[in-house]
Amino acid sequence: MTEKKRTTIILFSGDYDKAMAAYIIANGAAAYDHEVTIFHTFWGLNALRKEEQVRVQKGFLEKMFAKMMPRGADKLGLSRMHFAGIGPKLIKQVMKKHNAMPLPQLIDMAKEQGVKLVACQMTVDLLGLKQEELIDGIEFAGVAAYLADASEGNVNLFI
Amino acid sequence: MTEKKRTTIILFSGDYDKAMAAYIIANGAAAYDHEVTIFHTFWGLNALRKEEQVRVQKGFLEKMFAKMMPRGADKLGLSRMHFAGIGPKLIKQVMKKHNAMPLPQLIDMAKEQGVKLVACQMTVDLLGLKQEELIDGIEFAGVAAYLADASEGNVNLFI
Amino acid sequence: MTEKKRTTIILFSGDYDKAMAAYIIANGAAAYDHEVTIFHTFWGLNALRKEEQVRVQKGFLEKMFAKMMPRGADKLGLSRMHFAGIGPKLIKQVMKKHNAMPLPQLIDMAKEQGVKLVACQMTVDLLGLKQEELIDGIEFAGVAAYLADASEGNVNLFI
Repeated sequence: MTEKKRTTIILFSGDYDKAMAAYIIANGAAAYDHEVTIFHTFWGLNALRKEEQVRVQKGFLEKMFAKMMPRGADKLGLSRMHFAGIGPKLIKQVMKKHNAMPLPQLIDMAKEQGVKLVACQMTVDLLGLKQEELIDGIEFAGVAAYLADASEGNVNLFI
Repeated sequence: MTEKKRTTIILFSGDYDKAMAAYIIANGAAAYDHEVTIFHTFWGLNALRKEEQVRVQKGFLEKMFAKMMPRGADKLGLSRMHFAGIGPKLIKQVMKKHNAMPLPQLIDMAKEQGVKLVACQMTVDLLGLKQEELIDGIEFAGVAAYLADASEGNVNLFI
Repeated sequence: MTEKKRTTIILFSGDYDKAMAAYIIANGAAAYDHEVTIFHTFWGLNALRKEEQVRVQKGFLEKMFAKMMPRGADKLGLSRMHFAGIGPKLIKQVMKKHNAMPLPQLIDMAKEQGVKLVACQMTVDLLGLKQEELIDGIEFAGVAAYLADASEGNVNLFI
């Protein structure tokens, strides 16, 4: 009776390159039969937003945040060499050339492999996001759920 | 005889949102009875600075650093959407609305819960900070102490 | 028969201060007899570039990346207070004053202590880097090798 290995990643960052790293590690770990959780918090929630605008009731501050934050995985910027949006285009071009999977596909793959995608309920509320604005198939939970998963495994990263 | 679970966080970042994430995880882990250490290094030391100016002898470089770095948890900026200081105000307003604890209170709570707050001695010296400039109730230690704690637990994060 | 402790660090960041933190932890862990791996990916690869220009065949995009990215550990910028390059100079001056080891020496020390330095093959390819452009004595591997190391230890950091 061998115990299942476990990998948990807190995705705090809303950068395309960091989210890519998170999802590549997650997909790798799932392929090696780890139980994997990605816990999205703060700007990392932007990777889970639907691309299309969803009509929801919001207060003024929440509308402002919603407007200023990128809508979905494909819209994220780079952590460096962003150059007003040219950087992300370059990276995506290079990735295509090398047959590397773009972020939205990495997320689909993670879901297919059974990676547990969690949105941090507290920061969802703080940033004024509504469940309907986030992609399907994700869970909502808090720090207690994160700790329960993390303390069972030893590959625990904050990205 | 069950062993105590352990969580250690290296807080390298001096961003308000990242420090908040660090302290929320630390407080959560302490509530679930983990032994918790936050090891503050580089810009993460700014969260431990006293708000008031403290008269100490410093060289020129040290004075410059002291001047350019934010004094205390309440003064930290955001990792993104800082917008010349408007971002932090917005976040704090939103947090108030949702009854989320601001960072200085999260730090107080961590101390009350027995979270061990450590300042990295090497970077304290590098940045020219003096013990009197940092809040009370913290320890000063180095990488050896960090490793001793971290290698006993499995939730080890670098933020 | 005690098992060897293990520390693995993913160095994603190309910032001088973060790379310093990574190498200080790695050297500390090696001194305490951990098996240590630093897995360099994305901008973290810049710490492994040779300082001198190496003649290699590259496509247009790869040439652009190569040009825009810092060549070697000594050329990295700071994660904050970069101030158009003044920040790194200040930090290095302060480090000299305190007899702290600069990054290139920390890397040499890591190699001497047997820290395994790995370059992520996928991002080496993405950024158009060639093996000849990177320093000697490093390995090339992927996420599978990282996970194999990380899941055996419990100090696993993403920097």
